[in-house]
Amino acid sequence: MATFIAHVNVMLRPVINDPQGLAVKDGLHSLGFEGVSTVRVGKRVDITVDADSAATAETQVREMCRQLLANPVIEDFEITVAEVTAA
Amino acid sequence: MATFIAHVNVMLRPVINDPQGLAVKDGLHSLGFEGVSTVRVGKRVDITVDADSAATAETQVREMCRQLLANPVIEDFEITVAEVTAA
Repeated sequence: MATFIAHVNVMLRPVINDPQGLAVKDGLHSLGFEGVSTVRVGKRVDITVDADSAATAETQVREMCRQLLANPVIEDFEITVAEVTAA
Repeated sequence: MATFIAHVNVMLRPVINDPQGLAVKDGLHSLGFEGVSTVRVGKRVDITVDADSAATAETQVREMCRQLLANPVIEDFEITVAEVTAA
């Protein structure tokens, strides 16, 4: 059994309107950042989990996304898993 | 002038209490994911920006974080920049 850290990005699907992102874009324009064309705002979730292997950890985290972390109707998620090495 | 996509992760500093992360951890335990030991929840912001180079884009996005996207008192941020290639 080892410890893994999973980084999960949960973003609204590209076809879904993102009012928070639009508000941030307007704010950046007001601050003078005129080169900004699009902004999308989502969630970042870091999960520390014990598992037998990185593959098992990723499978577990994928199930967590399906059941709790993401809304599959409007959101996509991506997962990266790394082993936590003792200092 | 080229177009770059910047991925920004804004997370509460490790010493800052994260009630949202604790709530998610409790929810995952309730769902049977007993192997989860810590959960931290933050923001993920994807910004499309026009700039002369990747370094310029990153400098601009770092300034956006300082001025709007992150609260430097309680949050850390990390930035990755990639050029958007035309299809």
